Amino acid sequence: MKENKYTISDVANHLGVSRSTVSKAINNAPGVSPEVRKKILTFVEEVGYSPNTLARGLSKGRINIIALIVGDARNPFYSDLSFYIQKALNENGYMVMVFNTEYEEKREVEFINLTERFNFAGLILISAQSSDLKNVLKELKVPVVLVNRTFDDFNGDAVFLDNFQGGYMAAMHLMELGHKRIGFVAGHITSSSVKQRLNGYLQVLKNYYLPHSENDIRMGDLKMETGYNIAKDIIKDLKNQPSAFVLANDITALGFMQCCKENDVNIPEMISIVSFDDIVYASLKDIELTTVSQHVQEMGEQAARLMLKKLDDSSSKSEIIVIEPNLIIRNTTGPFKSDRFANSKFR
Amino acid sequence: MKENKYTISDVANHLGVSRSTVSKAINNAPGVSPEVRKKILTFVEEVGYSPNTLARGLSKGRINIIALIVGDARNPFYSDLSFYIQKALNENGYMVMVFNTEYEEKREVEFINLTERFNFAGLILISAQSSDLKNVLKELKVPVVLVNRTFDDFNGDAVFLDNFQGGYMAAMHLMELGHKRIGFVAGHITSSSVKQRLNGYLQVLKNYYLPHSENDIRMGDLKMETGYNIAKDIIKDLKNQPSAFVLANDITALGFMQCCKENDVNIPEMISIVSFDDIVYASLKDIELTTVSQHVQEMGEQAARLMLKKLDDSSSKSEIIVIEPNLIIRNTTGPFKSDRFANSKFR
Repeated sequence: MKENKYTISDVANHLGVSRSTVSKAINNAPGVSPEVRKKILTFVEEVGYSPNTLARGLSKGRINIIALIVGDARNPFYSDLSFYIQKALNENGYMVMVFNTEYEEKREVEFINLTERFNFAGLILISAQSSDLKNVLKELKVPVVLVNRTFDDFNGDAVFLDNFQGGYMAAMHLMELGHKRIGFVAGHITSSSVKQRLNGYLQVLKNYYLPHSENDIRMGDLKMETGYNIAKDIIKDLKNQPSAFVLANDITALGFMQCCKENDVNIPEMISIVSFDDIVYASLKDIELTTVSQHVQEMGEQAARLMLKKLDDSSSKSEIIVIEPNLIIRNTTGPFKSDRFANSKFR
Repeated sequence: MKENKYTISDVANHLGVSRSTVSKAINNAPGVSPEVRKKILTFVEEVGYSPNTLARGLSKGRINIIALIVGDARNPFYSDLSFYIQKALNENGYMVMVFNTEYEEKREVEFINLTERFNFAGLILISAQSSDLKNVLKELKVPVVLVNRTFDDFNGDAVFLDNFQGGYMAAMHLMELGHKRIGFVAGHITSSSVKQRLNGYLQVLKNYYLPHSENDIRMGDLKMETGYNIAKDIIKDLKNQPSAFVLANDITALGFMQCCKENDVNIPEMISIVSFDDIVYASLKDIELTTVSQHVQEMGEQAARLMLKKLDDSSSKSEIIVIEPNLIIRNTTGPFKSDRFANSKFR
């Protein structure tokens, strides 16, 4: 058994190529010439390489673990994102440790500090919360990648959606269906992505001279229960509410739909909703949520790529990757009808 | 600002009570007399205690972090379980770090070894996979709690469902609805909970003289996609298949339902399904899955309680907590009908 004998660095050193080239060849990723790839794979087959991550981390003084900090590990969007990040990092010999902050700033800072203490190789922050993050990150000596959110003046590595465009296309879709009064349910307002989505939505109202009222913008917190409660409040006075809503995320939308079902508010006949994320449950035949995809797999893979690049060469140039959203039209949005309450208890 | 000045141990030492008594009083948990509780709360208010977990961990040499190893962080049952465990541990001043094994034994062992290396305070294993776990755990000097699965001869702390009873009540429900041929889709067969559920199901077939065929038992892996693929295979020859199935978990059931919908196989008219977990999506109005609840919150809280007990007093007696399942009947199970394909393309 030659297994675990050679590390990725050993292979790289022996063949005089970079570690990232070796990992690309092994993982069948692009960016390696066919000759080099063949050379690497032949050698690897000969010596029996296998990524023994722990041993490798120890020999370099820094442990090959990437800390991954998420706001809400129960949100399928975040758990999918974590999955794709972990998958790509695992394939390149890194392990991932997940911290769940429940969107608490204090806990986030505590976890960031652990990264230093444990000598982790890097830090990936999904949906960073802290207002003071810039100062906290300044102290860190390891690569950092921000995912899904960023903050002003951040010039390190980051991956996020074009959230303005996301908000714009969601509201635009509702406008095109004939809805005149369109509401918005936001996530945490401290978040850069929420602000951008809200701005995109407001831009549609402005461009198409649709009415804009502060009352039609509600604050949420990305939780299912909150979506449920907001719907409950809206249903109390349904006739005087917007006929369509852009919702912060799919989870909020699922809660919203649940409350509508329970109160005989038909979607999309009486109210149209569009949200963000395209989580796996959004596409189920019985749900069929219209939603803006954030391309979670691409987002996760890009985050991992940026991290691996910095791990390979800490002086490499930082990148900001902006992912283009796309609208997936399913069954929760429909044309505006002025007589939508005609045969209901809401008329 | 007196915040962070006193640790839970300081408070305990000062008042001459145990740390668990202090944390119970602070967290408004039972098991503390009103006088003692009042004394603690008065003192705490005076000195300004706040659980500064990191500082506390450092002062004791062992860091106050509990490692939590899960098989699949994307499965809502596991992410809910993790949430409740983390919540209870956080309230008692412990942080939680999550490792996701994707059900890989090798990775599980790697993560268990990290527990020692990082000097974590304890280890909670959700759905342990390793066949050799007993030997791996023997080496550990920190408290271990097994959740959801156990292994032969394990006599440490553990929390799991009465899985035999769960399998029994699921099959019993289908039998009572008049189904004669009942199929079973299992999770990983290495798992103790899968074996017990299968045994419960087989017991029903035996007790009620229902036909038992190996062909009606299929192996799955607790994934949505697998549920989809198994349904696809069943639909190919629907007329010659069982009229009802017990499915490994809700995620498998959601995949199964998706495929049935796509192929005009009506649930429960043509086929009845019951699964396990009662994840949040199972109760959505558009899903309404009949399922066996594992009482995820109770399971999580019990796991945290066992861990805290051992952390407080490592010589305390180990406990095995068996949680009683209960069947939640929704809309995916219905009476057996011999003419169920009469008006369909399957007749």
